[in-house]
Amino acid sequence: MIRVAIVGYGNIGRYALKALQAAPDMEVAGIVRRNGAENKPGELAPYAVVKDIAELGHVDVAILATPTRKVEETAKALLAKGISTVDSFDIHTQIVDLRRSLDAAAKQGHAAAIISAGWDPGSDSVVRALLEGLAPQGITYTNFGPGRSMGHSVAVKAVEGVRDALSITIPLGTGIHRRMVYVELEEGADFATVEAAVKADPYFVNDETHVQQVACVADINDVGHGVNMVRKGVSAQTHNQLFDFNMRINNPALTAQVLVNSARAVMKQQPGAYTMIEIPVIDYLSGDREELIRHLV
Amino acid sequence: MIRVAIVGYGNIGRYALKALQAAPDMEVAGIVRRNGAENKPGELAPYAVVKDIAELGHVDVAILATPTRKVEETAKALLAKGISTVDSFDIHTQIVDLRRSLDAAAKQGHAAAIISAGWDPGSDSVVRALLEGLAPQGITYTNFGPGRSMGHSVAVKAVEGVRDALSITIPLGTGIHRRMVYVELEEGADFATVEAAVKADPYFVNDETHVQQVACVADINDVGHGVNMVRKGVSAQTHNQLFDFNMRINNPALTAQVLVNSARAVMKQQPGAYTMIEIPVIDYLSGDREELIRHLV
Repeated sequence: MIRVAIVGYGNIGRYALKALQAAPDMEVAGIVRRNGAENKPGELAPYAVVKDIAELGHVDVAILATPTRKVEETAKALLAKGISTVDSFDIHTQIVDLRRSLDAAAKQGHAAAIISAGWDPGSDSVVRALLEGLAPQGITYTNFGPGRSMGHSVAVKAVEGVRDALSITIPLGTGIHRRMVYVELEEGADFATVEAAVKADPYFVNDETHVQQVACVADINDVGHGVNMVRKGVSAQTHNQLFDFNMRINNPALTAQVLVNSARAVMKQQPGAYTMIEIPVIDYLSGDREELIRHLV
Repeated sequence: MIRVAIVGYGNIGRYALKALQAAPDMEVAGIVRRNGAENKPGELAPYAVVKDIAELGHVDVAILATPTRKVEETAKALLAKGISTVDSFDIHTQIVDLRRSLDAAAKQGHAAAIISAGWDPGSDSVVRALLEGLAPQGITYTNFGPGRSMGHSVAVKAVEGVRDALSITIPLGTGIHRRMVYVELEEGADFATVEAAVKADPYFVNDETHVQQVACVADINDVGHGVNMVRKGVSAQTHNQLFDFNMRINNPALTAQVLVNSARAVMKQQPGAYTMIEIPVIDYLSGDREELIRHLV
């Protein structure tokens, strides 16, 4: 059994626990939270909930369910202790730098890290890389949604006068998106001012954005999301090869599942840091290798 | 540059040459044919066409564009010479055995083999394995077509009285298929007899099969094919996660492209035999590793 700790217990941490419970080859070492066992939720009763991972005894892998910006610092500290890590770091432009930084830390700690292991970046990246191979000349469009965008929602919440916000991403094709923004205002806030501020925000300024006022954001929140990835290109000098990949999923559930699969895969890697496209797909799966080949290949 | 030989020059061999010509990191070592340079087609003028691969000098990888039943014997002979191989062996039930057999041969020859590297088995297998990870509990249906089935067409051609035949696979969903069979009869052959023989053939007996007589099979032949792979399952104890993958492709062009990608990937593996799901997806691609990660992850 692989002994896995969950670091951070927000939305992703909760689903990671569910995925670990369902994994036949994994054991929950415990949960690491800022507040430790204080106000321990009922579903954590069977588990050790601690402030410091050292209190959990031997841990093979830590699933980082922390905010993206905390990933590098947290992973480095764990890798230095020889604990492998998996994260769903999602700032696309900083992935190469994170990989370099954690690669050095992992090699020093004789551990391994799989980074950006969510669905995008993550499993979508595997599909994107596969499709680029199948038609090396061509264009891939990744169309997100309809679904709740975390980053965009947080940006709206930061606008003055906004109590709660939800930004839904609507795919318009060819990688172009519409943003549907729902805001719950604080007492006395002016909707027109909020609307103008949202539309001027760097997160929204380049997209078609519609802002609407609602009484209660919680009442309309739904964590379903989706992707439609399309590639049209050339295989062996032959044009018009058409590929598309679609999913409609519960967002945190899929992210957590990918993290748990990666926790399995990371145990099979040499020391270093990897993105998902650098790992054989079979390594994410549990079970006998020949049996997997027999039913999947 | 990776020096690649093409062994066999039928449909797949021809497209493999096109894919090699388009690959920035590969060089055509030459073509190995039963008849050598006899009746050499025009497009092969710039290349060495030989009966024995030894005449081509150093070869890194051989692409086996031979019939599936010749793969094991041909690959073993090449691996013994230290030449890595890639093939698109497509008898699903015999893949594990072939992998064992070539694994031993590859290790002895200090070479590597990637087997069953077409689109199904092959790139579809990578998607199937990925989806099984994303929703570990659930069912995947692989629906083929509409498109020409090679194996089924060959089976019909073997029926007495049939001059030429085309069997088209029509997907009816949930992995169930209709077979549309077009036959060109020999002088004096009885259509009803042929129809009955086709429907009784093990290739067709379990499927809804329609047989139609045509004047000329060549006039209706088209090598387009397709796949629709669907999985519905459970991620992190959360049901109703929906995935589907579709492609509409020129069949031999895609097979050849996968073979050429695998010729690149095989150079990066330790001695042994592998299926495509055992290889990191990034290994199939040419170019700088960090640059690939930057634009694909």
